[in-house]
Amino acid sequence: MTNCPFCSIAAGDAPAVVVRSWPDAVAIRPRSGGVNPGHVLVLPRVHVDDVGVDPAVTAAVMRRAAELAAELPDANVITSKGRVATQTVRHLHVHVVPRREDDGLPLPWTPRPAARAGGAAV
Amino acid sequence: MTNCPFCSIAAGDAPAVVVRSWPDAVAIRPRSGGVNPGHVLVLPRVHVDDVGVDPAVTAAVMRRAAELAAELPDANVITSKGRVATQTVRHLHVHVVPRREDDGLPLPWTPRPAARAGGAAV
Repeated sequence: MTNCPFCSIAAGDAPAVVVRSWPDAVAIRPRSGGVNPGHVLVLPRVHVDDVGVDPAVTAAVMRRAAELAAELPDANVITSKGRVATQTVRHLHVHVVPRREDDGLPLPWTPRPAARAGGAAV
Repeated sequence: MTNCPFCSIAAGDAPAVVVRSWPDAVAIRPRSGGVNPGHVLVLPRVHVDDVGVDPAVTAAVMRRAAELAAELPDANVITSKGRVATQTVRHLHVHVVPRREDDGLPLPWTPRPAARAGGAAV
């Protein structure tokens, strides 16, 4: 897709730190460096906007993400659909985030500081 | 698998609020009620411990999660492997979390309060 940064990376036309490469997908380091050491993004080579578009592409890219997660003792596998859900690039990508004890990374079910401080019922 | 609460639910032997049912998977409401309205867990009917065990099962359950995400404008699709990653039930399950503007749910890349308050470079 024209002007899609992840299509350019998948085609080898834009620079990225490629961690793993498969016929149907590529795993790269986030440009920001990621939230934990080993954080990668898995992208399908074909363009689909997000996880909701094409079941076969979703299944394929999730298999690749799962291959990476299988090598980690603890990991979150996350994909986001839509701006409100924090999707910033409209090309399906799956975060594989290695987790370490006490790394403090939040998930949607992590108690928030207000709830902790106030002792509110949750 | 004996003593697996999600196997019992998938077999219909334990109560749960079933939101969707397929030959290979079932979507239920979290027992806690979830973090947002519409939050569901998608479970494969066969037992696998987590996302890293069986690529075919992972692909199948992710297709089902994607079907649900396709119906939502904004959503996070999340699975966790290992205690440190917040996995509390050792039966693969995929969270589909509908997102709403300003719902405040965090993800691993959400700036944490200390960083926001202190103006630290991130």
